[in-house]
Amino acid sequence: MPKIVDHDDRRRELVRAAWRVVGQHGLEGLTTRAVAREAGWSTGVLAHYFTNREELLLAAFRLVFEEARGRMQRALAAEADPTQALINALLEAVPITARQRSEAIIWFTFLGLAVGHPTLRAEAQKCYAQWLDIIEQALQAVFPSQPLANTTARRTARTLVSHVDGLTVQAIFDTEELPMHQLKTQLQECIHATLTAVDHV
Amino acid sequence: MPKIVDHDDRRRELVRAAWRVVGQHGLEGLTTRAVAREAGWSTGVLAHYFTNREELLLAAFRLVFEEARGRMQRALAAEADPTQALINALLEAVPITARQRSEAIIWFTFLGLAVGHPTLRAEAQKCYAQWLDIIEQALQAVFPSQPLANTTARRTARTLVSHVDGLTVQAIFDTEELPMHQLKTQLQECIHATLTAVDHV
Repeated sequence: MPKIVDHDDRRRELVRAAWRVVGQHGLEGLTTRAVAREAGWSTGVLAHYFTNREELLLAAFRLVFEEARGRMQRALAAEADPTQALINALLEAVPITARQRSEAIIWFTFLGLAVGHPTLRAEAQKCYAQWLDIIEQALQAVFPSQPLANTTARRTARTLVSHVDGLTVQAIFDTEELPMHQLKTQLQECIHATLTAVDHV
Repeated sequence: MPKIVDHDDRRRELVRAAWRVVGQHGLEGLTTRAVAREAGWSTGVLAHYFTNREELLLAAFRLVFEEARGRMQRALAAEADPTQALINALLEAVPITARQRSEAIIWFTFLGLAVGHPTLRAEAQKCYAQWLDIIEQALQAVFPSQPLANTTARRTARTLVSHVDGLTVQAIFDTEELPMHQLKTQLQECIHATLTAVDHV
Protein backbone atom coordinates (compact mmCIF):
# COMPACT_ATOMS: atom_id res chain seq x y z
CA MET A 1 0.00 0.00 0.00
CA PRO A 2 1.50 3.36 -0.94
CA LYS A 3 2.18 5.80 1.86
CA ILE A 4 -0.54 8.42 2.06
CA VAL A 5 0.88 11.93 1.93
CA ASP A 6 -0.85 14.58 3.98
CA HIS A 7 -0.38 17.54 1.66
CA ASP A 8 -1.23 20.14 4.29
CA ASP A 9 1.35 18.65 6.62
CA ARG A 10 4.02 18.61 3.96
CA ARG A 11 3.16 22.16 2.94
CA ARG A 12 3.55 23.26 6.54
CA GLU A 13 6.82 21.36 6.80
CA LEU A 14 8.16 23.20 3.74
CA VAL A 15 7.01 26.55 5.09
CA ARG A 16 8.79 25.88 8.38
CA ALA A 17 11.94 25.07 6.41
CA ALA A 18 11.53 28.48 4.73
CA TRP A 19 11.31 30.12 8.18
CA ARG A 20 14.57 28.47 9.19
CA VAL A 21 16.29 29.61 5.99
CA VAL A 22 15.16 33.22 6.51
CA GLY A 23 16.15 33.01 10.19
CA GLN A 24 19.66 31.85 9.29
CA HIS A 25 20.40 33.66 6.05
CA GLY A 26 17.89 36.50 5.84
CA LEU A 27 15.50 37.23 3.06
CA GLU A 28 18.20 37.26 0.41
CA GLY A 29 19.03 33.66 1.30
CA LEU A 30 15.46 32.56 0.61
CA THR A 31 15.57 30.60 -2.62
CA THR A 32 13.47 27.57 -3.55
CA ARG A 33 16.72 25.59 -3.78
CA ALA A 34 17.80 26.55 -0.23
CA VAL A 35 14.37 25.70 1.18
CA ALA A 36 14.28 22.32 -0.58
CA ARG A 37 17.73 21.53 0.83
CA GLU A 38 16.71 22.61 4.34
CA ALA A 39 13.52 20.52 4.19
CA GLY A 40 15.36 17.50 2.79
CA TRP A 41 13.26 17.35 -0.38
CA SER A 42 14.07 17.91 -4.02
CA THR A 43 13.24 21.21 -5.71
CA GLY A 44 10.82 19.12 -7.80
CA VAL A 45 8.76 18.23 -4.71
CA LEU A 46 8.90 21.86 -3.56
CA ALA A 47 7.68 23.04 -6.97
CA HIS A 48 4.64 20.83 -6.50
CA TYR A 49 3.60 23.03 -3.56
CA PHE A 50 5.05 26.43 -4.45
CA THR A 51 5.63 27.52 -8.01
CA ASN A 52 8.00 30.33 -7.02
CA ARG A 53 9.76 32.19 -4.26
CA GLU A 54 6.96 34.74 -3.89
CA GLU A 55 4.40 32.01 -3.20
CA LEU A 56 6.69 30.48 -0.63
CA LEU A 57 7.23 33.81 1.09
CA LEU A 58 3.52 34.56 1.11
CA ALA A 59 2.80 31.14 2.62
CA ALA A 60 5.51 31.68 5.26
CA PHE A 61 4.01 35.02 6.25
CA ARG A 62 0.45 33.66 6.31
CA LEU A 63 1.47 30.78 8.54
CA VAL A 64 3.20 33.16 10.99
CA PHE A 65 0.00 35.16 11.18
CA GLU A 66 -2.31 32.13 11.43
CA GLU A 67 -0.25 30.57 14.21
CA ALA A 68 0.01 33.83 16.17
CA ARG A 69 -3.71 34.43 15.69
CA GLY A 70 -4.49 30.92 16.94
CA ARG A 71 -2.37 31.46 20.05
CA MET A 72 -4.01 34.85 20.68
CA GLN A 73 -7.49 33.39 20.44
CA ARG A 74 -6.58 30.54 22.77
CA ALA A 75 -5.05 33.03 25.23
CA LEU A 76 -8.25 35.09 25.17
CA ALA A 77 -10.43 32.00 25.71
CA ALA A 78 -8.26 30.64 28.54
CA GLU A 79 -8.27 33.66 30.87
CA ALA A 80 -11.39 34.85 32.70
CA ASP A 81 -10.13 38.34 33.60
CA PRO A 82 -10.55 40.45 30.42
CA THR A 83 -7.58 42.76 31.06
CA GLN A 84 -5.25 39.86 31.76
CA ALA A 85 -6.65 38.02 28.72
CA LEU A 86 -5.87 41.04 26.53
CA ILE A 87 -2.33 41.25 27.96
CA ASN A 88 -1.78 37.52 27.43
CA ALA A 89 -3.00 37.75 23.84
CA LEU A 90 -0.68 40.67 23.01
CA LEU A 91 2.26 38.89 24.64
CA GLU A 92 1.81 36.11 22.07
CA ALA A 93 2.90 38.55 19.36
CA VAL A 94 6.16 39.89 20.81
CA PRO A 95 9.53 38.09 20.71
CA ILE A 96 9.64 36.81 24.31
CA THR A 97 10.38 33.21 23.31
CA ALA A 98 12.87 31.89 20.74
CA ARG A 99 9.99 30.77 18.59
CA GLN A 100 8.22 34.12 18.71
CA ARG A 101 11.52 35.78 17.90
CA SER A 102 11.81 33.70 14.71
CA GLU A 103 8.25 34.64 13.82
CA ALA A 104 8.94 38.33 14.42
CA ILE A 105 11.95 38.17 12.13
CA ILE A 106 9.86 36.60 9.37
CA TRP A 107 7.14 39.19 9.97
CA PHE A 108 9.41 42.23 9.60
CA THR A 109 11.36 40.67 6.75
CA PHE A 110 8.08 40.19 4.96
CA LEU A 111 6.81 43.70 5.76
CA GLY A 112 10.04 45.18 4.42
CA LEU A 113 9.53 43.42 1.14
CA ALA A 114 5.78 44.01 1.07
CA VAL A 115 5.98 47.82 1.18
CA GLY A 116 7.06 47.78 -2.46
CA HIS A 117 5.10 44.78 -3.68
CA PRO A 118 1.33 44.96 -4.41
CA THR A 119 0.38 41.27 -3.76
CA LEU A 120 2.37 40.97 -0.53
CA ARG A 121 1.20 44.40 0.56
CA ALA A 122 -2.47 43.42 0.21
CA GLU A 123 -1.80 40.34 2.33
CA ALA A 124 -0.11 42.41 5.06
CA GLN A 125 -3.02 44.87 5.06
CA LYS A 126 -5.50 41.98 5.46
CA CYS A 127 -3.54 40.55 8.40
CA TYR A 128 -3.42 43.90 10.17
CA ALA A 129 -7.17 44.40 9.71
CA GLN A 130 -7.88 40.95 11.18
CA TRP A 131 -5.48 41.51 14.02
CA LEU A 132 -7.07 44.86 14.90
CA ASP A 133 -10.50 43.18 14.87
CA ILE A 134 -9.39 40.58 17.42
CA ILE A 135 -7.87 43.20 19.73
CA GLU A 136 -10.87 45.49 19.36
CA GLN A 137 -13.21 42.71 20.43
CA ALA A 138 -10.98 41.82 23.39
CA LEU A 139 -10.94 45.48 24.38
CA GLN A 140 -14.72 45.71 24.47
CA ALA A 141 -14.68 42.86 27.01
CA VAL A 142 -12.48 45.02 29.27
CA PHE A 143 -15.20 47.68 29.46
CA PRO A 144 -18.39 45.58 29.74
CA SER A 145 -20.59 48.13 31.52
CA GLN A 146 -19.89 50.91 29.03
CA PRO A 147 -19.12 49.75 25.47
CA LEU A 148 -16.48 51.84 23.71
CA ALA A 149 -17.52 53.85 20.68
CA ASN A 150 -16.31 52.09 17.52
CA THR A 151 -13.80 54.82 16.73
CA THR A 152 -12.40 54.75 20.28
CA ALA A 153 -12.12 50.96 20.21
CA ARG A 154 -10.32 51.01 16.84
CA ARG A 155 -7.99 53.80 17.90
CA THR A 156 -7.14 52.01 21.14
CA ALA A 157 -6.58 48.73 19.30
CA ARG A 158 -4.21 50.60 16.96
CA THR A 159 -2.29 51.96 19.93
CA LEU A 160 -1.94 48.50 21.48
CA VAL A 161 -0.83 46.92 18.21
CA SER A 162 1.61 49.79 17.69
CA HIS A 163 3.24 48.93 21.03
CA VAL A 164 3.61 45.32 19.93
CA ASP A 165 5.21 46.21 16.59
CA GLY A 166 7.29 49.11 17.87
CA LEU A 167 8.75 47.26 20.84
CA THR A 168 9.35 44.21 18.65
CA VAL A 169 11.48 46.28 16.27
CA GLN A 170 13.59 47.51 19.18
CA ALA A 171 13.86 44.01 20.66
CA ILE A 172 14.96 42.54 17.33
CA PHE A 173 17.67 45.12 16.80
CA ASP A 174 18.85 45.38 20.35
CA THR A 175 18.60 42.12 22.25
CA GLU A 176 21.15 43.31 24.81
CA GLU A 177 19.47 46.55 25.74
CA LEU A 178 15.95 45.14 25.56
CA PRO A 179 16.11 41.49 26.64
CA MET A 180 13.04 39.24 26.56
CA HIS A 181 12.02 39.64 30.22
CA GLN A 182 12.24 43.44 30.02
CA LEU A 183 10.24 43.48 26.81
CA LYS A 184 7.48 41.60 28.62
CA THR A 185 7.38 44.06 31.53
CA GLN A 186 7.51 47.04 29.22
CA LEU A 187 4.64 45.81 27.06
CA GLN A 188 2.52 45.19 30.15
CA GLU A 189 3.18 48.75 31.36
CA CYS A 190 2.29 50.16 27.95
CA ILE A 191 -0.97 48.23 27.91
CA HIS A 192 -1.91 49.47 31.39
CA ALA A 193 -1.10 53.09 30.43
CA THR A 194 -3.20 52.76 27.27
CA LEU A 195 -6.18 51.26 29.13
CA THR A 196 -5.94 53.97 31.81
CA ALA A 197 -6.03 56.66 29.11
CA VAL A 198 -9.16 55.03 27.62
CA ASP A 199 -10.84 55.10 31.01
CA HIS A 200 -10.35 58.84 31.12
CA VAL A 201 -11.85 59.50 27.67
CA MET B 1 38.31 75.79 -16.33
CA PRO B 2 36.88 72.36 -15.54
CA LYS B 3 33.65 72.22 -13.63
CA ILE B 4 34.25 71.49 -9.97
CA VAL B 5 32.23 68.49 -8.80
CA ASP B 6 30.92 68.54 -5.26
CA HIS B 7 31.26 64.87 -4.42
CA ASP B 8 29.02 65.07 -1.35
CA ASP B 9 26.30 66.68 -3.43
CA ARG B 10 26.54 64.07 -6.12
CA ARG B 11 26.55 61.28 -3.58
CA ARG B 12 23.39 62.70 -2.04
CA GLU B 13 21.85 63.05 -5.50
CA LEU B 14 22.55 59.36 -6.18
CA VAL B 15 21.13 58.32 -2.82
CA ARG B 16 17.95 60.29 -3.52
CA ALA B 17 17.68 58.48 -6.86
CA ALA B 18 17.93 55.21 -4.90
CA TRP B 19 15.06 56.37 -2.65
CA ARG B 20 12.91 57.02 -5.70
CA VAL B 21 13.72 53.60 -7.17
CA VAL B 22 12.78 51.83 -3.91
CA GLY B 23 9.64 53.99 -3.62
CA GLN B 24 8.54 52.99 -7.11
CA HIS B 25 9.74 49.42 -7.47
CA GLY B 26 10.44 48.21 -3.95
CA LEU B 27 13.63 46.77 -2.62
CA GLU B 28 13.84 44.12 -5.32
CA GLY B 29 13.94 46.88 -7.96
CA LEU B 30 17.01 48.43 -6.33
CA THR B 31 19.91 47.66 -8.64
CA THR B 32 22.90 49.87 -9.36
CA ARG B 33 21.75 49.96 -12.99
CA ALA B 34 18.25 51.20 -12.05
CA VAL B 35 19.66 53.88 -9.76
CA ALA B 36 22.13 55.09 -12.39
CA ARG B 37 19.29 55.35 -14.91
CA GLU B 38 17.06 57.20 -12.42
CA ALA B 39 19.85 59.64 -11.57
CA GLY B 40 20.74 60.21 -15.21
CA TRP B 41 24.34 59.02 -14.76
CA SER B 42 26.24 56.02 -16.09
CA THR B 43 26.78 52.95 -13.91
CA GLY B 44 30.47 53.90 -14.17
CA VAL B 45 29.86 57.19 -12.34
CA LEU B 46 27.71 55.38 -9.79
CA ALA B 47 30.47 52.80 -9.22
CA HIS B 48 32.79 55.67 -8.31
CA TYR B 49 30.57 56.40 -5.29
CA PHE B 50 29.11 53.00 -4.40
CA THR B 51 30.89 49.77 -5.19
CA ASN B 52 27.77 47.63 -4.79
CA ARG B 53 24.07 47.52 -4.00
CA GLU B 54 24.65 46.98 -0.28
CA GLU B 55 26.71 50.17 0.01
CA LEU B 56 24.00 52.07 -1.80
CA LEU B 57 21.30 50.70 0.44
CA LEU B 58 23.32 51.46 3.56
CA ALA B 59 23.87 55.04 2.35
CA ALA B 60 20.15 55.41 1.57
CA PHE B 61 19.21 54.28 5.06
CA ARG B 62 21.83 56.48 6.72
CA LEU B 63 20.63 59.53 4.84
CA VAL B 64 17.00 58.86 5.87
CA PHE B 65 18.14 58.71 9.48
CA GLU B 66 20.43 61.77 9.24
CA GLU B 67 17.75 63.90 7.64
CA ALA B 68 15.07 62.82 10.13
CA ARG B 69 17.47 63.40 12.99
CA GLY B 70 18.28 66.88 11.67
CA ARG B 71 14.59 67.76 11.46
CA MET B 72 13.98 66.40 14.98
CA GLN B 73 16.80 68.47 16.42
CA ARG B 74 15.59 71.60 14.66
CA ALA B 75 12.03 70.92 15.90
CA LEU B 76 13.32 70.60 19.47
CA ALA B 77 15.34 73.82 19.20
CA ALA B 78 12.48 75.81 17.63
CA GLU B 79 9.80 75.24 20.27
CA ALA B 80 9.99 76.69 23.79
CA ASP B 81 7.38 74.42 25.40
CA PRO B 82 9.16 71.10 26.10
CA THR B 83 6.07 68.88 25.67
CA GLN B 84 5.15 70.51 22.36
CA ALA B 85 8.80 70.31 21.27
CA LEU B 86 8.83 66.56 21.98
CA ILE B 87 5.57 66.10 20.05
CA ASN B 88 6.90 68.11 17.11
CA ALA B 89 10.13 66.08 17.07
CA LEU B 90 8.28 62.75 17.03
CA LEU B 91 5.94 63.98 14.30
CA GLU B 92 9.00 64.41 12.07
CA ALA B 93 9.40 60.63 12.04
CA VAL B 94 5.91 59.48 11.03
CA PRO B 95 4.55 59.49 7.45
CA ILE B 96 2.38 62.62 7.63
CA THR B 97 3.89 64.19 4.50
CA ALA B 98 4.62 62.59 1.14
CA ARG B 99 8.31 62.99 1.82
CA GLN B 100 8.13 61.39 5.26
CA ARG B 101 6.10 58.58 3.74
CA SER B 102 8.90 57.86 1.24
CA GLU B 103 11.39 57.90 4.09
CA ALA B 104 9.26 55.51 6.15
CA ILE B 105 9.09 53.10 3.22
CA ILE B 106 12.88 53.14 2.87
CA TRP B 107 13.22 52.70 6.65
CA PHE B 108 11.04 49.59 6.87
CA THR B 109 12.40 48.16 3.65
CA PHE B 110 15.84 48.49 5.13
CA LEU B 111 14.83 47.03 8.51
CA GLY B 112 13.27 44.03 6.76
CA LEU B 113 16.54 43.34 5.00
CA ALA B 114 18.69 44.19 8.03
CA VAL B 115 17.15 41.57 10.34
CA GLY B 116 19.06 38.90 8.44
CA HIS B 117 22.19 40.87 7.57
CA PRO B 118 24.96 41.59 10.13
CA THR B 119 26.35 44.86 8.65
CA LEU B 120 22.97 46.44 8.03
CA ARG B 121 21.71 45.19 11.35
CA ALA B 122 24.56 46.91 13.23
CA GLU B 123 23.72 50.14 11.42
CA ALA B 124 20.03 49.88 12.37
CA GLN B 125 20.95 49.22 15.98
CA LYS B 126 23.18 52.31 16.03
CA CYS B 127 20.41 54.49 14.60
CA TYR B 128 17.90 53.29 17.20
CA ALA B 129 20.36 53.95 20.05
CA GLN B 130 20.96 57.51 18.78
CA TRP B 131 17.26 58.10 18.28
CA LEU B 132 16.47 56.91 21.82
CA ASP B 133 19.18 59.25 23.16
CA ILE B 134 17.59 62.28 21.48
CA ILE B 135 14.12 61.43 22.77
CA GLU B 136 15.42 60.68 26.25
CA GLN B 137 17.06 64.09 26.44
CA ALA B 138 13.91 65.82 25.17
CA LEU B 139 11.92 63.91 27.80
CA GLN B 140 14.09 65.15 30.64
CA ALA B 141 13.26 68.71 29.56
CA VAL B 142 9.54 67.91 30.04
CA PHE B 143 10.16 67.17 33.74
CA PRO B 144 12.65 69.89 34.73
CA SER B 145 11.85 70.05 38.44
CA GLN B 146 12.22 66.32 39.00
CA PRO B 147 14.67 64.56 36.65
CA LEU B 148 13.57 61.08 35.59
CA ALA B 149 15.65 58.13 36.70
CA ASN B 150 17.76 56.88 33.79
CA THR B 151 15.82 53.63 33.51
CA THR B 152 12.48 55.46 33.53
CA ALA B 153 13.68 57.90 30.89
CA ARG B 154 14.96 55.11 28.65
CA ARG B 155 11.79 53.05 29.07
CA THR B 156 9.60 56.05 28.30
CA ALA B 157 11.71 56.92 25.26
CA ARG B 158 11.26 53.32 24.08
CA THR B 159 7.50 53.61 24.47
CA LEU B 160 7.40 56.85 22.48
CA VAL B 161 9.59 55.45 19.71
CA SER B 162 7.45 52.30 19.65
CA HIS B 163 4.40 54.46 18.94
CA VAL B 164 6.20 56.10 16.05
CA ASP B 165 7.27 52.80 14.48
CA GLY B 166 4.08 50.90 15.24
CA LEU B 167 1.73 53.55 13.90
CA THR B 168 3.98 54.05 10.88
CA VAL B 169 3.64 50.36 9.98
CA GLN B 170 -0.15 50.64 10.15
CA ALA B 171 -0.15 53.88 8.15
CA ILE B 172 2.06 52.38 5.44
CA PHE B 173 -0.14 49.33 5.01
CA ASP B 174 -3.47 51.01 5.40
CA THR B 175 -3.55 54.54 4.05
CA GLU B 176 -7.32 54.48 3.78
CA GLU B 177 -8.07 53.44 7.32
CA LEU B 178 -5.28 55.52 8.85
CA PRO B 179 -4.88 58.64 6.72
CA MET B 180 -2.17 61.21 7.44
CA HIS B 181 -4.28 63.63 9.52
CA GLN B 182 -5.59 60.83 11.72
CA LEU B 183 -2.10 59.44 12.21
CA LYS B 184 -1.04 62.85 13.51
CA THR B 185 -3.91 63.05 16.02
CA GLN B 186 -3.38 59.49 17.14
CA LEU B 187 0.33 59.96 17.75
CA GLN B 188 -0.34 63.10 19.78
CA GLU B 189 -2.84 61.21 21.94
CA CYS B 190 -0.37 58.37 22.46
CA ILE B 191 2.34 60.82 23.53
CA HIS B 192 0.00 62.51 26.03
CA ALA B 193 -1.07 59.14 27.47
CA THR B 194 2.58 58.09 27.80
CA LEU B 195 3.60 61.34 29.52
CA THR B 196 0.62 61.12 31.88
CA ALA B 197 1.64 57.60 32.87
CA VAL B 198 5.18 58.86 33.60
CA ASP B 199 3.80 61.59 35.80
CA HIS B 200 2.12 58.99 37.96
CA VAL B 201 5.22 56.84 38.48
